[in-house]
Amino acid sequence: MNEFALSVTARDGAARSGRLDTAHGPVLTPAFMPVGTAGTVKGVLPEAVAATGADIVLGNTYHLMLRPGADTVEKLGGLRRFMGWPGPVLTDSGGFQVMSLADLRKLDEDGVYFQSHIDGSRHRLTPESAIAIQHQLGSTITMVLDECTPFPATEGDVEKSMQLSMRWAERCREAFVERDGHALFGIVQGGIYPAQRRRSAEALQEIGFDGYAIGGLAVGEGPELLREISRSTAALLPEDRPRYLMGVGRPQDIVAAVEAGIDMFDCVLPTRSGRNGQAFTRRGKVNIRNARHAGDPRPLEAGCACPACAGHSRGYLHHLVRCGEILGGIL
Amino acid sequence: MNEFALSVTARDGAARSGRLDTAHGPVLTPAFMPVGTAGTVKGVLPEAVAATGADIVLGNTYHLMLRPGADTVEKLGGLRRFMGWPGPVLTDSGGFQVMSLADLRKLDEDGVYFQSHIDGSRHRLTPESAIAIQHQLGSTITMVLDECTPFPATEGDVEKSMQLSMRWAERCREAFVERDGHALFGIVQGGIYPAQRRRSAEALQEIGFDGYAIGGLAVGEGPELLREISRSTAALLPEDRPRYLMGVGRPQDIVAAVEAGIDMFDCVLPTRSGRNGQAFTRRGKVNIRNARHAGDPRPLEAGCACPACAGHSRGYLHHLVRCGEILGGIL
Repeated sequence: MNEFALSVTARDGAARSGRLDTAHGPVLTPAFMPVGTAGTVKGVLPEAVAATGADIVLGNTYHLMLRPGADTVEKLGGLRRFMGWPGPVLTDSGGFQVMSLADLRKLDEDGVYFQSHIDGSRHRLTPESAIAIQHQLGSTITMVLDECTPFPATEGDVEKSMQLSMRWAERCREAFVERDGHALFGIVQGGIYPAQRRRSAEALQEIGFDGYAIGGLAVGEGPELLREISRSTAALLPEDRPRYLMGVGRPQDIVAAVEAGIDMFDCVLPTRSGRNGQAFTRRGKVNIRNARHAGDPRPLEAGCACPACAGHSRGYLHHLVRCGEILGGIL
Repeated sequence: MNEFALSVTARDGAARSGRLDTAHGPVLTPAFMPVGTAGTVKGVLPEAVAATGADIVLGNTYHLMLRPGADTVEKLGGLRRFMGWPGPVLTDSGGFQVMSLADLRKLDEDGVYFQSHIDGSRHRLTPESAIAIQHQLGSTITMVLDECTPFPATEGDVEKSMQLSMRWAERCREAFVERDGHALFGIVQGGIYPAQRRRSAEALQEIGFDGYAIGGLAVGEGPELLREISRSTAALLPEDRPRYLMGVGRPQDIVAAVEAGIDMFDCVLPTRSGRNGQAFTRRGKVNIRNARHAGDPRPLEAGCACPACAGHSRGYLHHLVRCGEILGGIL
């Protein structure tokens, strides 16, 4: 029970379903991880997150190290206790947000220097500090610091960036403190180049991780390349370890990735879409802001028992979103 | 059961507690009515509103007539169905918000003309249309249209305004369609002048209402006058009908008004304070934004079982409110 281990219980082609045991409870796979950016899945109480069927949530190291700071989260009992989430949590390394949000980034062999997008304060993230911060957060699953290679990039640039990420991955492995039921995941980089993806997957397996993520996708390469690269990369990863496709996302992309043998996903899409009045139904996307929903007494999805569909009309949801009411984002 | 009636079960001086039966369920009194401005108690699911102990919520006619419109609410099954609140609802007449929110107001004997603060559209509210709209909303308790006399005002101006409100009250009584378990409340005006309050209370009782509200207070007269006028006015109202002090509010004001024999209250204070990080505890007000809460592992109120106190630290609530996270307002 205290071992971190994946048990596969059913297979269909490359697809598999199973159960990932962790120190903080089991995760049924394939698993979507709602994103709890700054220690909260935006607009949703922890009980409501659990009621969606989520077993694990994701926290963003970048946001948490800036506010309230890793020391504060540690003092308040770690991220799980801090946010009132009793199950397992996965934290990213902060690298991705540094590249997408922070000001005045400077990357070198040692790590990355940046200024907070909130108050301009200066910070430094190295493989060692990224692991130390996640240790302070008490993460069930810790991610290595990597460079999420920008898209598009030449194969030469992708290779250089990937090699740096592999050297960082090794330093992360060294820095990580083993604890029962806790895990460290490596991240395969290599952009859209199969040869680089292969070399990255091999390098990580040589170091040895408890799970393997596929990074550097869902960054603008489009759905075709996303599927192709995630499929071919998943096939390079060990059968007995969980595979995690980072930053995905859309229902159709998740289904395709499950077919490719991916076990874990994360994305802000559900919560962000909810706040913007976008809903995913069996019959496709619904933009509830659309005027045609104004007087519609039907639920978003007939027969659905979720809090938004059970007992609320499309007309009401339309009204809430149009008025900018908080309850619209919550539902 | 389908009769609208107050049963007083205990008394202490002028204070009383009891039960108000309505077509849509009972209300234990004294009752605080959370304000569901535009068809939602801001940031709170209906189940969570009920879990606070609230038996009845208030809806604002002004907001609902502008968005989504009374026709739409009616088409979607009335306000209770629209907002997913199975219990009773009280709606105001819209007059107060016209005076405080709308643009280009013009008031005459017939009613009030105004422009929407949202889109500038022109609207008209008369005693008859205020009642008709509340009928469309399906309100359990309908309020008469009145003029909330500004403060300060001379006794002459207050008298003129009160007399207009009394003529409107009579027209409202005429326009109201009686239904089992539904009620129409009159509103005592008269500012801070006891003689005017007395004349208003008498005029309303001559018309005859199912309940009596005290309006025109909590508008800047201060806590002393608020208490004095609500106490003396409550004493003028019939024993067997519910008494409602509009727009109050603060815990200490509620306690004082209960002592004066008031049964019902409404205010946006709880939800607005929550969104601003203000909490009311047994030891007084807490501003959770204050830096001293940042690392505090204690709950807002020790021993409290509410969703904000049970399982969340002051440090976490501080973090949420500081980051502008929706969950801060919810909790």
